[in-house]
Amino acid sequence: MTNTAQQNDMANAIRSLSMDAVEKANSGHPGLPMGCADIATVLFTKVMKFDPANPKWADRDRFILSAGHGSMLLYSSLYLLGYGDMTLDQIKNFRQLGSKTAGHPEYGFAQGIETTTGPLGQGIGNSVGFAVAEAKLAAEFGSDLVDHHTWVLAGDGCLMEGISQEAISLAGHLKLNKLVVIWDNNGITIDGKVSNADSTDQIARFHACGWNTIEIDGHDQAQIEKALLDAKKSDKPTLIAARTTIGFGAPKKAGTEKVHGSPLGAEELAGAKAALGITYPAFEVPAEIINAWRAAGTRSQNIRGEWEARLAKSDKRAEFERRMAGDLPSDYAAAMDAFKKKLAEDKPKVASRKASQNALDVINAVVPETVGGSADLTGSNLTNTPQTLPFTDADRTGRYMRYGIREHEMAAAMNGIALHGGYIPYGGTFLVFTDYARPAIRLSALMEQRVIYVMTHDSIGLGEDGPTHQPVEHLSALRAIPELLVLRPADATETLECWQIALEHKDRPSILALSRQNLPALRTEYVKENLSAKGAYKIAGDDNADAVIFATGSEVSIAVEAQKQLAEKGVSAKVVSVPSMELFAKQSDAYRASILGNAKARVAVEAGISMSWDKLLGDKGRFVGMHGFGASAPAEALYEHFGITANAVVEAVTAQL
Amino acid sequence: MTNTAQQNDMANAIRSLSMDAVEKANSGHPGLPMGCADIATVLFTKVMKFDPANPKWADRDRFILSAGHGSMLLYSSLYLLGYGDMTLDQIKNFRQLGSKTAGHPEYGFAQGIETTTGPLGQGIGNSVGFAVAEAKLAAEFGSDLVDHHTWVLAGDGCLMEGISQEAISLAGHLKLNKLVVIWDNNGITIDGKVSNADSTDQIARFHACGWNTIEIDGHDQAQIEKALLDAKKSDKPTLIAARTTIGFGAPKKAGTEKVHGSPLGAEELAGAKAALGITYPAFEVPAEIINAWRAAGTRSQNIRGEWEARLAKSDKRAEFERRMAGDLPSDYAAAMDAFKKKLAEDKPKVASRKASQNALDVINAVVPETVGGSADLTGSNLTNTPQTLPFTDADRTGRYMRYGIREHEMAAAMNGIALHGGYIPYGGTFLVFTDYARPAIRLSALMEQRVIYVMTHDSIGLGEDGPTHQPVEHLSALRAIPELLVLRPADATETLECWQIALEHKDRPSILALSRQNLPALRTEYVKENLSAKGAYKIAGDDNADAVIFATGSEVSIAVEAQKQLAEKGVSAKVVSVPSMELFAKQSDAYRASILGNAKARVAVEAGISMSWDKLLGDKGRFVGMHGFGASAPAEALYEHFGITANAVVEAVTAQL
Repeated sequence: MTNTAQQNDMANAIRSLSMDAVEKANSGHPGLPMGCADIATVLFTKVMKFDPANPKWADRDRFILSAGHGSMLLYSSLYLLGYGDMTLDQIKNFRQLGSKTAGHPEYGFAQGIETTTGPLGQGIGNSVGFAVAEAKLAAEFGSDLVDHHTWVLAGDGCLMEGISQEAISLAGHLKLNKLVVIWDNNGITIDGKVSNADSTDQIARFHACGWNTIEIDGHDQAQIEKALLDAKKSDKPTLIAARTTIGFGAPKKAGTEKVHGSPLGAEELAGAKAALGITYPAFEVPAEIINAWRAAGTRSQNIRGEWEARLAKSDKRAEFERRMAGDLPSDYAAAMDAFKKKLAEDKPKVASRKASQNALDVINAVVPETVGGSADLTGSNLTNTPQTLPFTDADRTGRYMRYGIREHEMAAAMNGIALHGGYIPYGGTFLVFTDYARPAIRLSALMEQRVIYVMTHDSIGLGEDGPTHQPVEHLSALRAIPELLVLRPADATETLECWQIALEHKDRPSILALSRQNLPALRTEYVKENLSAKGAYKIAGDDNADAVIFATGSEVSIAVEAQKQLAEKGVSAKVVSVPSMELFAKQSDAYRASILGNAKARVAVEAGISMSWDKLLGDKGRFVGMHGFGASAPAEALYEHFGITANAVVEAVTAQL
Repeated sequence: MTNTAQQNDMANAIRSLSMDAVEKANSGHPGLPMGCADIATVLFTKVMKFDPANPKWADRDRFILSAGHGSMLLYSSLYLLGYGDMTLDQIKNFRQLGSKTAGHPEYGFAQGIETTTGPLGQGIGNSVGFAVAEAKLAAEFGSDLVDHHTWVLAGDGCLMEGISQEAISLAGHLKLNKLVVIWDNNGITIDGKVSNADSTDQIARFHACGWNTIEIDGHDQAQIEKALLDAKKSDKPTLIAARTTIGFGAPKKAGTEKVHGSPLGAEELAGAKAALGITYPAFEVPAEIINAWRAAGTRSQNIRGEWEARLAKSDKRAEFERRMAGDLPSDYAAAMDAFKKKLAEDKPKVASRKASQNALDVINAVVPETVGGSADLTGSNLTNTPQTLPFTDADRTGRYMRYGIREHEMAAAMNGIALHGGYIPYGGTFLVFTDYARPAIRLSALMEQRVIYVMTHDSIGLGEDGPTHQPVEHLSALRAIPELLVLRPADATETLECWQIALEHKDRPSILALSRQNLPALRTEYVKENLSAKGAYKIAGDDNADAVIFATGSEVSIAVEAQKQLAEKGVSAKVVSVPSMELFAKQSDAYRASILGNAKARVAVEAGISMSWDKLLGDKGRFVGMHGFGASAPAEALYEHFGITANAVVEAVTAQL
């Protein structure tokens, strides 16, 4: 190693703060910050473009700590660089209630945290979306306004997770050359040596996926700098394999799993500081070292100033700022309303997946920031429109992501696109395969990102493909995720309204659960108000009926049929369509009471399990739906077989009266 | 191609039946069966070891159609080979209600279906478990009794899914040389050319993961046979990359996505048959072709006879048969009971994850067929015991799988181990990461396999790692999966009982949700009966109390503390521990009524969301638990912060009285 004394001092400042914070919290992961301190020092003080005084500068480089357990590496660096909200007190309150310095980096908690990481592989998964958004924005607005890189620090765990393969194969295919992944190649996982569980030749693997690769000593700052700068010249995404020592400096624990996820302990900590030449007290980084960091932190201020000047002069400024603010275009509302009127006139009988495509025809024409896609089910999800030419290595203006058979990466990439800003991602697969994407869907919700999941074939109504492809528990399991909007529209008008809900919630992800099979038009009169936005509303029948029948999606028409049959028998019923339980729960008590009513009978019908309905149904309500896995047969036969019919609803009502 | 006329006829029989069945069903996937007919013909009639007359023969080769949508390839082959239950009527009833020929192969529906496939990547994921089980059994019982191969047919979709990377990197690391994956390299996915979405050099990728690779023309039966036989000689797992034409023979649609997942249509079907030289009517394969297949089907009868003779003479016969039957050993029950008595005496205050390890100490000593493991969290999950030496390429007797940071593959491999027979797999990660494994967990349930998930750090009680690591919705989301037992024990005795439940349910998977934090002993008196097996039972308080407090796991002690506080206030309460909602739902009405009681107040306390409790709570019940994501802080601070305390329970009770 040929690091200068100052280079070592700057890296040791990260190590020192990280050791101290973990020790004080008596919890956390010192190994990665100590091992990657040289990498972070070079990356943040010499290579990356950002401005701590303007942390949301649109053209900043993005840094993603995919190995999120090493959070103190990021917090220490942000503090040293002079990010205003990352105070020394925050460092001292690492992992304490209410601090910005959570155990893993949480998006929105502090400036400079670009995404929430911790669940392994998610950061590298997000990074592909960041790089896609950058490439698209640059193609749309020019490299004068958009020209930045996405830097990822990933550990062995990230590379072992399956999602990493989906991410790197997609990034390599798309030749996302402004994406750089630095692999903290320390040879250690929680259970011991990586070689106990994995023998993958990662360099060969990334090569096989179309990546540029560089191997370096991750403690040699000159090598690190050269590699980072070389990576920027590549026409492919770059993997920098950096050999490091986990817990670098710890006299007994360095290079072992013992330093991964526990405090060093007083003795080992003192020994590490002695070995590293750190002579200052805990948390007290000397002023000259901090000053060197802070000076580096201001490196890009001129570049940012020039950028601001270019933006001020640009004729694209208003549109660029609208995009980055995430506001919808001014002509959006009128276009949606006009289409809603047309739907009331046309009364189309279509599958809600087709209704979704029809809505997208309108949306994609007036909302240029949508980026569609599908995990290789375009013709089934109907996520394409005439506007959605593919995004490829040759055409960065394309608005359609051919995600391939990579549901998990699709979701993670959409998180990255949304987090980057400038675009609204939507992407499709079958509803049952939300299971494959669930860790990333959870993060959409935790990070409060506008990511729109277009999930078709949403019940046994998909028919012959059978139980492996039929969601049964999925509506309930998705409704269980906090903050996620689960939207299941009943006809073309509700589908349009649900798209409006999804687009207009800037800080929540949505799942549109859409039918394969055709559904009759139920909303046959134009109403300007978005009725679906109430979550639940009366769609048919009498206000003060003896029975209330709740239903969603493809089962609303079954409920309406049951209501007609009941009327013939002299039983008054009302049908309540419930496109979103989450939105209904937010309505006023008075509205909720008016919907629930004082009916003597209460029934819910949905082609899934009852769990998420139990609260609405209460002690006396009855459920018509699924009670186990589905089966392989034509859809009509399955609805009969599982007893999800108007007759069954009628019986459930009459049994209560 | 140099195929003989008979070879072509035999392959065309698969093509013909597959085209006809899909056409008749007006639904299904003809492309793969037509493209892989040559591969299947060689594999089934020349290479694989099996006996249609004894489909469960323990030493048979296993075939896994990872590309499950090509189900007609398997059904056609099983019919042609003479499997008794795969009749021509079944072929004609493809994808109809009640048939054995479901849209995707469903385990248990017909002989010769070794695993349920369809969700892409799962079959290749399972296959690693099959190969592990074979290697272990061979090491234990000798190659005289166990010496077979696992053959997988996988498509581009399987290889694009992230789980495939976890599977192949694990298989390569473990040098599972009796695993052979045939890649149907047809260059087509549903959305079009593979090259639209992926540019991975699969050969290089598999090499990087330690695999032997062979490239062949997948329509040249001589090449196929040579490759399959060469693969058997490798000391590594083998990938055979077979170039094929999807929909081989279809005059207009072959080689395109149009033939992937839809019937050919009458004209194209007729054209295909003409091109292939198929002159017989739909479903009427000529006798001489069937006879050639049936003769091949009997190929291994002598080998099986010799194997039966060896087994009959073996001194390991009884143990081998017990293992394959999945029965527990005779000394298991007494050992568990003795430990239960000891627990009642010792009254240990331990985390339930530690209680689980203590139970495993007993179990692994008397149940030699357990195969433990962890996704790189051994020291956290506490899934290891003195018996669990690692399973490695050098030691196939090892009883511990170092799964690496591969939660999804861990679950899929456990499915494979269970399906193969001879072993009971259990494996651990954090409960929150069930999300990563959910598609495979769902298949454990759908296939009714005894797979035991040891999921620790089961609530905000994990503390400082924060919301990304804290399960909140997971207990409800897992309870939503049909057939899955979700077991959350409250102390060491309940933990033992939950292990008994998991082991004694031969046909259901279980999830043990275990605490990080210490829990007091609540079951302080020995009771022989497995009280947890009732699902819910009174653990403290008065039978006819004014209030009933339901709780699980780490919250039961909170409920007991609340009950004591209430007693001091003169309010009688009973605490009901609910280790399993699923088992409680199966109890008699009388028992359930006795537990629910006529209490005026009903409260449930669980450090998760309320959804799965709504039914038990009913209209008037109150819930003490989580209402959104967690936070990063010490566990005690989080319980206070989120109001999951004895005080909160007391308040919830008194508010109702």
